[in-house]
Amino acid sequence: MATWTDAQMSSIDKMLNPKSVAVVGATPRMQYGGRFLNAMLKAQDRVNIYPVNPRYDEIMGIRSYPSVSDLPEAPDLVGIVVPYHQVLNVLQESHEKGAKSAIVISAGFSERDVDDRRDLQAEVGAFARESGIRICGPNCLGVANVQADIWPSASSRGSDGLSGPIGLVCQSGASAFGPFLTRAVEEGIGLSHIISTGNEADLDFCDFARYLLDQDSVSVIAGFVEGFKDARKLVEVAKVAADRGKPIVLIKIGRSDLGSRAARSHTAALTGSDALYDEIFAQYGITRVQDYDELLEVSQLLAHTGRPAQPGVAVVSHSGGISSLTADMCGQAGLDLPPLTDEARDGINDVLKGFGWAANPSDVTGFANSDSFPEIMRHMSEQPQIGTLVVASAGSDAQAEQVIAQRDNSERGLAFLWTGTRSATAGLSKLKEARIPIFYVPDKLALGLKTLLNYHEWVNVKSSEGFGQKEAITDTNIDFVTILRNDNPVTLSESKSKQLISGWGIPITREKLAENAAVAVRLAEEIGYPVALKVDSPDILHKTEAGVIRLGLGGAAEVSAAYDEIMSAAAQAAPGAQVNGALVQEMVSGGVEVIVGVSYDDQLGPVLLFGTGGVMVEVYNDVALRHCPITGSEAIGMINQVKGSRLLKGFRGAPPADVDALADVLARVSQMAVQLEGTLSELDVNPLMVLPEGQGVKAVDALIVFRE
Amino acid sequence: MATWTDAQMSSIDKMLNPKSVAVVGATPRMQYGGRFLNAMLKAQDRVNIYPVNPRYDEIMGIRSYPSVSDLPEAPDLVGIVVPYHQVLNVLQESHEKGAKSAIVISAGFSERDVDDRRDLQAEVGAFARESGIRICGPNCLGVANVQADIWPSASSRGSDGLSGPIGLVCQSGASAFGPFLTRAVEEGIGLSHIISTGNEADLDFCDFARYLLDQDSVSVIAGFVEGFKDARKLVEVAKVAADRGKPIVLIKIGRSDLGSRAARSHTAALTGSDALYDEIFAQYGITRVQDYDELLEVSQLLAHTGRPAQPGVAVVSHSGGISSLTADMCGQAGLDLPPLTDEARDGINDVLKGFGWAANPSDVTGFANSDSFPEIMRHMSEQPQIGTLVVASAGSDAQAEQVIAQRDNSERGLAFLWTGTRSATAGLSKLKEARIPIFYVPDKLALGLKTLLNYHEWVNVKSSEGFGQKEAITDTNIDFVTILRNDNPVTLSESKSKQLISGWGIPITREKLAENAAVAVRLAEEIGYPVALKVDSPDILHKTEAGVIRLGLGGAAEVSAAYDEIMSAAAQAAPGAQVNGALVQEMVSGGVEVIVGVSYDDQLGPVLLFGTGGVMVEVYNDVALRHCPITGSEAIGMINQVKGSRLLKGFRGAPPADVDALADVLARVSQMAVQLEGTLSELDVNPLMVLPEGQGVKAVDALIVFRE
Repeated sequence: MATWTDAQMSSIDKMLNPKSVAVVGATPRMQYGGRFLNAMLKAQDRVNIYPVNPRYDEIMGIRSYPSVSDLPEAPDLVGIVVPYHQVLNVLQESHEKGAKSAIVISAGFSERDVDDRRDLQAEVGAFARESGIRICGPNCLGVANVQADIWPSASSRGSDGLSGPIGLVCQSGASAFGPFLTRAVEEGIGLSHIISTGNEADLDFCDFARYLLDQDSVSVIAGFVEGFKDARKLVEVAKVAADRGKPIVLIKIGRSDLGSRAARSHTAALTGSDALYDEIFAQYGITRVQDYDELLEVSQLLAHTGRPAQPGVAVVSHSGGISSLTADMCGQAGLDLPPLTDEARDGINDVLKGFGWAANPSDVTGFANSDSFPEIMRHMSEQPQIGTLVVASAGSDAQAEQVIAQRDNSERGLAFLWTGTRSATAGLSKLKEARIPIFYVPDKLALGLKTLLNYHEWVNVKSSEGFGQKEAITDTNIDFVTILRNDNPVTLSESKSKQLISGWGIPITREKLAENAAVAVRLAEEIGYPVALKVDSPDILHKTEAGVIRLGLGGAAEVSAAYDEIMSAAAQAAPGAQVNGALVQEMVSGGVEVIVGVSYDDQLGPVLLFGTGGVMVEVYNDVALRHCPITGSEAIGMINQVKGSRLLKGFRGAPPADVDALADVLARVSQMAVQLEGTLSELDVNPLMVLPEGQGVKAVDALIVFRE
Repeated sequence: MATWTDAQMSSIDKMLNPKSVAVVGATPRMQYGGRFLNAMLKAQDRVNIYPVNPRYDEIMGIRSYPSVSDLPEAPDLVGIVVPYHQVLNVLQESHEKGAKSAIVISAGFSERDVDDRRDLQAEVGAFARESGIRICGPNCLGVANVQADIWPSASSRGSDGLSGPIGLVCQSGASAFGPFLTRAVEEGIGLSHIISTGNEADLDFCDFARYLLDQDSVSVIAGFVEGFKDARKLVEVAKVAADRGKPIVLIKIGRSDLGSRAARSHTAALTGSDALYDEIFAQYGITRVQDYDELLEVSQLLAHTGRPAQPGVAVVSHSGGISSLTADMCGQAGLDLPPLTDEARDGINDVLKGFGWAANPSDVTGFANSDSFPEIMRHMSEQPQIGTLVVASAGSDAQAEQVIAQRDNSERGLAFLWTGTRSATAGLSKLKEARIPIFYVPDKLALGLKTLLNYHEWVNVKSSEGFGQKEAITDTNIDFVTILRNDNPVTLSESKSKQLISGWGIPITREKLAENAAVAVRLAEEIGYPVALKVDSPDILHKTEAGVIRLGLGGAAEVSAAYDEIMSAAAQAAPGAQVNGALVQEMVSGGVEVIVGVSYDDQLGPVLLFGTGGVMVEVYNDVALRHCPITGSEAIGMINQVKGSRLLKGFRGAPPADVDALADVLARVSQMAVQLEGTLSELDVNPLMVLPEGQGVKAVDALIVFRE
């Protein structure tokens, strides 16, 4: 089944571009119902507006109807501002009337955190999906189509905003129509739509984002999300966004337990594992930011600046201190400020005549407010390594005009670091009107520019490589899984676990199961000394702690003795355990220890984990996570992300390890994870030894747990 | 010699509180000289002002003098705005006249990065120190005593600012009188002084900070520093600041190489090792911030809020989304939002009557703009675990008055998260006037509150424990160092290095030097098997790589063979090396490997390093650094700071290690570092084995390098 249907998108379209709107619960007083009606009146020249309230004949000068059934037409949108227990009735009546969509402002549903209200919300959601009258809310403040100047919203702020290409979707209505909108207006940042999704009984953040991605006039999605109802839809939305080249920028609650708890307490939304979300966002090209100012500034930059032709940034400022600080923050963010070419330096020095510094960053003192400034900007930007020019200043209208002309007449991108007051009008107003991306402090500027580069780099990789694709599971693997599941419903022994992963082409140690000491000795001689001996039991997972493992056994006597020791240790550590015997295993030396694992997130499904081995994973939590399946470059990305990967690259004179073979294993395990979704619960290959270049990898231990 | 003299402080006092000011190079045009004079005119009712320029009889309506010698009195301050080559002459003339202080606006000194200008600047500095006419600059924009409304400054911005308790000291004049001042005015943040120190030929950041700390009307020092001329003075200033309970908040360039390079290119200031500065700032209670808005907001919070009686924070907001985001950022910053007491919850619920959420954070919807809000605030704040109340809103003047009353009538601290536009007047202006600390986004609020708590926690520890004190070196240690230096001028062998550290009470392995294989066997039997055998040579530092180390030798034959192998490996690896023989050493098992080291920073002097051992230090750079000598709690702090310290605390079932003994060694090594400053160049104890609790520590290897 497709994640989104045409009918659903069409219902959203009616909600955002209605020709007729009923406001059920409209009143003359400026509470929710009155505010909703009042905000809609702004569009009364374009939209038929129908207050519905049996207690009035007329509200705010418009004829009021006793019920939706009485309306002269089937409305595109019904705004519902009635007590919670009447909502379902109004919806049913609206559906019967032929209404296309609804916004439920009314609160009193799952946010009350009691069962009957949760059930009621579920009923509302189910009704929407079955009937096709799709619903925004409940417990929201409605929406706004800023571009069309239609405001079906109960916000107390009214219906005013700057039109632009940024689509804003927030679960919290008081945030969307509060700080997000007011700061956008103040910063001169134009929005296409404002959508508050509330409790998301039906339509959620992802549904609205999906709709906005199809609108030509929307180029960036900016969101504030406390928790995703269905994170898999986010992955799907991100793929569409990548295809359209439209960035998604998000504030997502869950950085801390306090935040998760607060979000849960008032929206009943689960925030999920934050570390995982950080990784998933990066994997799918979603930019995560910390606050609303940053959300708006970064969205504005992404919306109004194309892909920088070069990663280099040139900074010109009126102050040495601001130059240093800007360069410092750029460096910290990982940006490059290439030194000036000789030509640029000479050109700028000709202008400066001994005042200021021609460098990158340049400190051009008073020349930033002179007729020569365009020439300086031209020299700074027209260098082969430069993709973006940053002007750090607080100049007059004249300077603003110069900067706008530079942006308009150059292929380089341009961003402004405004060092004056935020309430300045001279200069600043002109920059805002011209949609020059503006930042107010150097570190936010630097983070913004880094986001711009990262995003386009990611889009570039994706456009050539695409996303990971699930491959078909082989019949052999299907059969083997079936047999294993019949034998052993939950946890597999080490040897069975390794046999299974070897079905996906993952190299494992040479090893055989011995059922007594004599067989163990014979097998050891076949395999070749030294060998390791380990108990083989699905019931003993922590072998080292249980004392059922012996390493580096050099001869027959040692193997024989070790076998007996292990068996008695196993009997002692886990009296009732099923013990298949002992695994006689080659010793692997000269490799670097790593961990590869699979788990299943409640929402996202299969997640691949990679980390360097031993105590480092535990002490430093030095791991990379990805949604499965991964691509080849994602495998390499996982390896490079982990700090301990230095150990793989010829550390302290050791030979470089076989990173290609490791990347191949990561991709194979990620296929295994998607192919066995629903069957597998957990997979750990720990340790996987990465041998020197050309020698591959070898799984030394593995553990597979099936779902109950 | 004292770092600061009374005469120097008195000269600074005259500069900031002059009764008479000469402006040499004053002109009627509004360039530097004209602006300086114009800014001073604001104080002409209180200060005698003397333009000095032979080309005019009168400038801006004031009599002008041909030279300083011609003035009717010896001025407290001379402002110098003449070409660089005349500066020294003017200074000499001013000194002869009896002037007390000077501000050199003129540029063209060391920032030009050529030898003769650097020399000239050095001459200016030397003249100031010898003559006692202390100098601010050159290449600065002057100073302002905002509290007294005296502006000896050449800033183009003029002479206007809000008076308050924050002393601002910046090297960059264009920053100080640019974004820092304008943003302060916009945010309603009052400054006591604005000081731009420029190239710091004489007086530097630390000198002015030291002066400001003595002023009762200054309660916080805010600074922007590209590089310290003498970081030891910073340590001294920080100690005085701690004593006075006055926080220092700093932007310090050097987060990245780009920033360091930019600062060096225009001020010739060295930024130093950033990781070290981060640690030193924390050690001495200095708060480091990233940008000017943060500098001002945090300084305002510190200046206008006392020590929170409890670490707990209570957040009340008008929006669920903002509640969640604020809680999330608080959690991320490490703050605690304790759950409400039953009493507070019931009290708030009585007000809310089913609307909003009584919790921490509370979302009180429209009640944030109602007569009941004071009652809500009272319930939120008057809980035993709460020290600070945060109001997140954007209300009216009425709300602002309620909040101000809450602050005034409560022992709890209060901070405001303003969610409206920054240019709002209703509400916001009243909050600013009342000096309520205001933040505009949740993450900055959270970082600010965390800083407030950290600062007072640090002051509290310091007021009971004080700073590390140098102890006297023992005669035995003096003698031993003398003997060693006579023997071996630079690098000591392992055995000598360990003998030396054992003089400071650091336990070392039992070990003896063998000059041939037979002696090695005899010594091994004395020490007890197993033993380690290592070459003893001051010329072979990397013993593992050279193959001159054998571990776990279990008997005579092994020892004898190992001795011969080591000697031939040594001869091969380092043909000309001085080889004293082989060290026969006990094997230490069952401990956790750590590293303790000493280095000497060019500016700060002795620095102690602690890290967990093996590859973890190198891969994760998991180390703590402190200026020496350290206190006991600083030793514990170093250990806790390092992530790998988990290995010391009973990791994976191992016994907890002897952390007390480790802390004791850190303190001892830090004493050694200060006692041997000037003699020692480098000390590494690597590995130091930390044995299980009660068993102490043991240095397994050590390396001492003396200064050449």
